[in-house]
Amino acid sequence: MKQLLKEIGHNPLLWGLAFVPMLFAFHWLKPESHTLLFILSVLAVIPLAALLSLATESVAHRTGDAVGGLLNATLGNLTELVIALAALQAGQYMLVKASVAGSIVANTLFMLGASFLLGGLKHHLQEYNRVNARFQAGLLFLATVALLIPSAVGEVDSAAGAAFTQKLSVALAVLLLATYGLGLLFSLKTHRELFAVAEHGEAGDAPLPIGVALGTLACVTVLVALVSEVFVESVQQAALAFGMTPAFVGFIVVALVGGAAEMGSSFSGARRNRLDLSVGIALGSASQIALFVAPVLVLLSYVLGPQPMDLQFWPGAVVMMLIATVAAALVTSSGRSTWFVGVFVLMVYLVFAMTLYLLPPRVH
Amino acid sequence: MKQLLKEIGHNPLLWGLAFVPMLFAFHWLKPESHTLLFILSVLAVIPLAALLSLATESVAHRTGDAVGGLLNATLGNLTELVIALAALQAGQYMLVKASVAGSIVANTLFMLGASFLLGGLKHHLQEYNRVNARFQAGLLFLATVALLIPSAVGEVDSAAGAAFTQKLSVALAVLLLATYGLGLLFSLKTHRELFAVAEHGEAGDAPLPIGVALGTLACVTVLVALVSEVFVESVQQAALAFGMTPAFVGFIVVALVGGAAEMGSSFSGARRNRLDLSVGIALGSASQIALFVAPVLVLLSYVLGPQPMDLQFWPGAVVMMLIATVAAALVTSSGRSTWFVGVFVLMVYLVFAMTLYLLPPRVH
Amino acid sequence: MKQLLKEIGHNPLLWGLAFVPMLFAFHWLKPESHTLLFILSVLAVIPLAALLSLATESVAHRTGDAVGGLLNATLGNLTELVIALAALQAGQYMLVKASVAGSIVANTLFMLGASFLLGGLKHHLQEYNRVNARFQAGLLFLATVALLIPSAVGEVDSAAGAAFTQKLSVALAVLLLATYGLGLLFSLKTHRELFAVAEHGEAGDAPLPIGVALGTLACVTVLVALVSEVFVESVQQAALAFGMTPAFVGFIVVALVGGAAEMGSSFSGARRNRLDLSVGIALGSASQIALFVAPVLVLLSYVLGPQPMDLQFWPGAVVMMLIATVAAALVTSSGRSTWFVGVFVLMVYLVFAMTLYLLPPRVH
Repeated sequence: MKQLLKEIGHNPLLWGLAFVPMLFAFHWLKPESHTLLFILSVLAVIPLAALLSLATESVAHRTGDAVGGLLNATLGNLTELVIALAALQAGQYMLVKASVAGSIVANTLFMLGASFLLGGLKHHLQEYNRVNARFQAGLLFLATVALLIPSAVGEVDSAAGAAFTQKLSVALAVLLLATYGLGLLFSLKTHRELFAVAEHGEAGDAPLPIGVALGTLACVTVLVALVSEVFVESVQQAALAFGMTPAFVGFIVVALVGGAAEMGSSFSGARRNRLDLSVGIALGSASQIALFVAPVLVLLSYVLGPQPMDLQFWPGAVVMMLIATVAAALVTSSGRSTWFVGVFVLMVYLVFAMTLYLLPPRVH
Repeated sequence: MKQLLKEIGHNPLLWGLAFVPMLFAFHWLKPESHTLLFILSVLAVIPLAALLSLATESVAHRTGDAVGGLLNATLGNLTELVIALAALQAGQYMLVKASVAGSIVANTLFMLGASFLLGGLKHHLQEYNRVNARFQAGLLFLATVALLIPSAVGEVDSAAGAAFTQKLSVALAVLLLATYGLGLLFSLKTHRELFAVAEHGEAGDAPLPIGVALGTLACVTVLVALVSEVFVESVQQAALAFGMTPAFVGFIVVALVGGAAEMGSSFSGARRNRLDLSVGIALGSASQIALFVAPVLVLLSYVLGPQPMDLQFWPGAVVMMLIATVAAALVTSSGRSTWFVGVFVLMVYLVFAMTLYLLPPRVH
Repeated sequence: MKQLLKEIGHNPLLWGLAFVPMLFAFHWLKPESHTLLFILSVLAVIPLAALLSLATESVAHRTGDAVGGLLNATLGNLTELVIALAALQAGQYMLVKASVAGSIVANTLFMLGASFLLGGLKHHLQEYNRVNARFQAGLLFLATVALLIPSAVGEVDSAAGAAFTQKLSVALAVLLLATYGLGLLFSLKTHRELFAVAEHGEAGDAPLPIGVALGTLACVTVLVALVSEVFVESVQQAALAFGMTPAFVGFIVVALVGGAAEMGSSFSGARRNRLDLSVGIALGSASQIALFVAPVLVLLSYVLGPQPMDLQFWPGAVVMMLIATVAAALVTSSGRSTWFVGVFVLMVYLVFAMTLYLLPPRVH
């Protein structure tokens, strides 16, 4: 505990934790001032993300980069799952789907690209084990095909079509979950040696003891979930005040803030020349959302939601996921990275962001 | 001959050859009992496929895996050509196209994926020469582009459009055939050393003498063609009885049964750690259908059919062929395989199969 | 100067320079005989291209293949830029876009494929540094995404849509230009050692002195621009006389003639087993058109054109660019080439050319 406080004292980023109680106070006192709550929630999420990243690294220290990356991705996505479940209960399926698709694209392009860029600005040429990148890109490809094929094969609008979409969504959800489970078996058990990581990175900061780290993980995850809830409440109104389109907010802003926790770890890994950790977090988090979070949401919608949710996404979202997957497969096929690879991946993301930012509001 | 009978005595799978005369008897006595004929024809095709695989392996023993794979693919596709010619003469162009597209997808995904899975369950990590895989994937890519571009470039419905589609189909058929011929020249003659295979597999069973093998090949091919004809006759009615959609029957069931012969050899190669043989059969058979069988059918339709057939496929079929090609290119780019690679490829196939199975009948 | 004349005396191709004054004479005397002017301008452009290639090689001798390839691509595209600017001032945006898209596809497929084929017919197996190919393919992929995503994400027809397309086009143009600039910084400055070329090719012919070479470059570029202007004037009418569709003329004929200068250098590099030069010219020229010429045209249209030009291309053109990019990425991923790789790439181009040749005129 003392070590945790010392860490907070040393790291100026963590001073921002003061925004967390401030946010809750304002939320209780002035629930209607959306723009203020939006800004406060963004300010509060960043130090929480930094703390989460610190705790995860302490745990990863004992488990190796591959398991550490998975752990980090899972905890990061836990908050996304929490937010999505709240939206699911409210029946806001459009928001759920936009946040799922947006997170996949943000992790695959922004988080990966920024990691490559930040790492490449410090190190001339970085190498990493491309087996994991190839594996995650394959999983993402499968998920994209599963989202793409129903609308490519049958354009169905009638009542028969709705029943078809619903049955197919459940079947595809089960199939994606099964693949995800088999993928864990493969990467953590039967062929874990393929995912081994070259030991070239610098060690991180002096890590927290394991008990403190696990306790911090649990507390901070809960706090992130609470802050995120305020964020989701306020973001739509605040965005209007800033002149952003709903498509831009759902797909870009929510996804970037929702992924702040993983991004912290991913970027810090890249700076310390441990790109395996960065690639594992960025692509692992994306494939986990596609093959675990989204199917679980479909299945839980039968229990929690006002009506079942399907896996039919807005066509533009499917195209963006497909392009993100192809871009990730392209850049990771060599297992080497430089700053320009990061620029390239970020530029693809920027094309999406600019298009959505300029898109006239009524459309889609 | 005695050795052939001995082989049949040893191999329980070959006892199923008894279903072949049984099928012909029932077809003569009760031509209307479609469901029975459907089941009998499936039961009869499996031992014939096993026998064909045995004979091909005996021939491949003398010719090496590359030529053996080509021989196997060609003989397997001979039956598909025979069936398609019958449907062509009857003017059933929808069935011809569905079976062509379905075979390409089934070979590229199901046969390749199941080979990887079956091989990977026995061997921890399998290696193969990726030059051949890359070569076949390239041919498939070209064929997919040829099927895709006419509908992408010009949406033409009028009479001028029909004439355009017809002329273009003939031109593309000639181009694909020329590429196929040049590909044979390249892989069997000018650059055959690139396709050489590492000698790491186990030898197969004691092979048949070459004369018996060739005789068996000829006879069994004829029998498979006859059985297939009964199968095609009965499958549509039987499928209705089982509640399958026509899309599922044409694209999945017919393609899987039609490919049974090649599958036997492909799977047995994978089990004996000779993945070069499996990849050669699976992708070689797919590219042969795309670049040889389909164009030949277009050209022959001018002689045999009631009217010319074009190369315009149902858009959903083209999308599935494109995805299958990309998936094959992705997984074979490393030249290594494990059980999970097989799972991944099979899952892509399963996404297609489930979608077609659930698709409301009227649509497409 | 004497050396230049000697070179012309030795090289029969350069005797064709006589067509240049002949063309200008006929253009002055008989400006209406389009078919004759078309034939003369094609005949005049070929020796000019050969001379340009000779001069570029002389310069490249001092600068290395990477810079030489860039120089060659830039000078080749200068003529395309000159032609496009003329069309821009005339407000012929359809022609500008067709020539931009056609040049990208012709360079990526025809120039690259013919280089591989010509090189492969002389050398059994050619190797080259795949880093540059991968880099250029990545740039092309980004440009294709930028052209694809606006129409994939929002189908907007209204007045709001037109404003959206216009604003987005400017934003994308700036983004592409920025990426192009960063790409130059990366490949020529920070990571130039990655683009180093193995020294296995034969040296070219005795090069011109640097002063003569630079003077020739300047003069010939101007001549090519003048000849091209006559060519563009006459091609549409001449094409009708030859029975070609406008789509075929804009996309195939203009692009091939416009690229003649680069093709000369690219083919001669391939014959001398310097595939790095060929790949650099072909893909470098394509990516330069996509990331430099096209954005510059969009921005200049605000100054020079009657109204602003956007980046929205005909969907068929975007599909062809996408396929060309994927094909280039596929074949260059191994860094090795044989004659069949050339055949494969040329066949993809032939599919496009045949489709456009047969396309009924009214459509598109």
